[in-house]
Amino acid sequence: MSELDELKMRLRAFAKERDWDQFHAPKNLAMALSVEVAELVEHFQWLSEDQSKSLDEKTKAEVADEIADVQVYLIRLADKLDVDILDAVGQKIEKNKAKYPADKVRGKSKKYTEYKDDEI
Amino acid sequence: MSELDELKMRLRAFAKERDWDQFHAPKNLAMALSVEVAELVEHFQWLSEDQSKSLDEKTKAEVADEIADVQVYLIRLADKLDVDILDAVGQKIEKNKAKYPADKVRGKSKKYTEYKDDEI
Amino acid sequence: MSELDELKMRLRAFAKERDWDQFHAPKNLAMALSVEVAELVEHFQWLSEDQSKSLDEKTKAEVADEIADVQVYLIRLADKLDVDILDAVGQKIEKNKAKYPADKVRGKSKKYTEYKDDEI
Amino acid sequence: MSELDELKMRLRAFAKERDWDQFHAPKNLAMALSVEVAELVEHFQWLSEDQSKSLDEKTKAEVADEIADVQVYLIRLADKLDVDILDAVGQKIEKNKAKYPADKVRGKSKKYTEYKDDEI
Repeated sequence: MSELDELKMRLRAFAKERDWDQFHAPKNLAMALSVEVAELVEHFQWLSEDQSKSLDEKTKAEVADEIADVQVYLIRLADKLDVDILDAVGQKIEKNKAKYPADKVRGKSKKYTEYKDDEI
Repeated sequence: MSELDELKMRLRAFAKERDWDQFHAPKNLAMALSVEVAELVEHFQWLSEDQSKSLDEKTKAEVADEIADVQVYLIRLADKLDVDILDAVGQKIEKNKAKYPADKVRGKSKKYTEYKDDEI
Repeated sequence: MSELDELKMRLRAFAKERDWDQFHAPKNLAMALSVEVAELVEHFQWLSEDQSKSLDEKTKAEVADEIADVQVYLIRLADKLDVDILDAVGQKIEKNKAKYPADKVRGKSKKYTEYKDDEI
Repeated sequence: MSELDELKMRLRAFAKERDWDQFHAPKNLAMALSVEVAELVEHFQWLSEDQSKSLDEKTKAEVADEIADVQVYLIRLADKLDVDILDAVGQKIEKNKAKYPADKVRGKSKKYTEYKDDEI
């Protein structure tokens, strides 16, 4: 069993023991996911880009904790929707290779930004 | 090598080939993560909880695509901060077991909500 | 002076007295705005749609507080970008009237959703 | 009538003409608000703080459009919850004056960050 599948099973058991599945509609899990991501963003909002690259140990531990929360809700959401995360990521990487050919988008922020803008 | 580590290596190579590491400060990746989560949320915003449980095939494929984007940026962010996602989730599950004892929080939405409020 | 302009001036003075303008780059204010919105979303994530329509007094006061935070950062961001919020909203309402003709989109959730999907 | 109240009335009429009130539960409006804020954040995610201070005209117009969307959903949400935005902001500014005394928090990013951390 893959690691993500193993975590999925542990998180299923966790919710079942607490009778929390009733709250875990995909709509609600998507909201919870967005809240956890914001708790992550909060750590970075007043830092410069450079400061964000060298967090002190305390902040790093808090950020790791928030990363875990995001991963947990993402696994729960994918589970409820019967989406295989690893498959989905594998397909996405192939799509992105086609969408952003290395030769064409290499290196310039402007190019990068324009490319991203196409996605909007 | 774990699956998430393998994805991490593939995503590193993807960014390196495009010279995109210069944009991938943790601050920026946290922002990108929040944007991808919102694209996920957008699919659910006008659906009822019940509707969110039975998506049509087209929507489900789009949602799977957004789940992949969230996972991709989460792996990139954790990589840049040198955080091991699996470790962090393992520790978080143990913390949550202590924080939300099954006997105490089982089943009632009010109880659940109050417990969640303690976190705020 | 309009009410929003008056608030803008008060918030300018507030930041100036604390020498906080140095942190208020639009990039950072956009992040802070997203964090405040998530604090608002957090109050609703486990509630049903019906429950969200009849908050108890304590929750309503907390939600009002978060609405204020969102408004504050929106005013600060618009100020830093020299955007007139009232003008922008006025123009947006006119655009939306053209985009969503009442005759065409009235009443059905499916229609509404499809229309919204066009925006993505 | 205040400007925000006038916008509130126009937005009420807009929703009523389209029979969209049925979708505008506060839970859903909070989600929509978070999606619009993310569309704002997307414009800034790969920009440096300095770049975010001097947007080109095209980007500025797009950002103004997103600011309008955020304001629109904030007015709708406050309306549905019977919250007076101007009152809420007025009270919040007074609270913040007490919470962040200018003498104590002036000028240093560290101080500012620590203060903000207290809110978490």
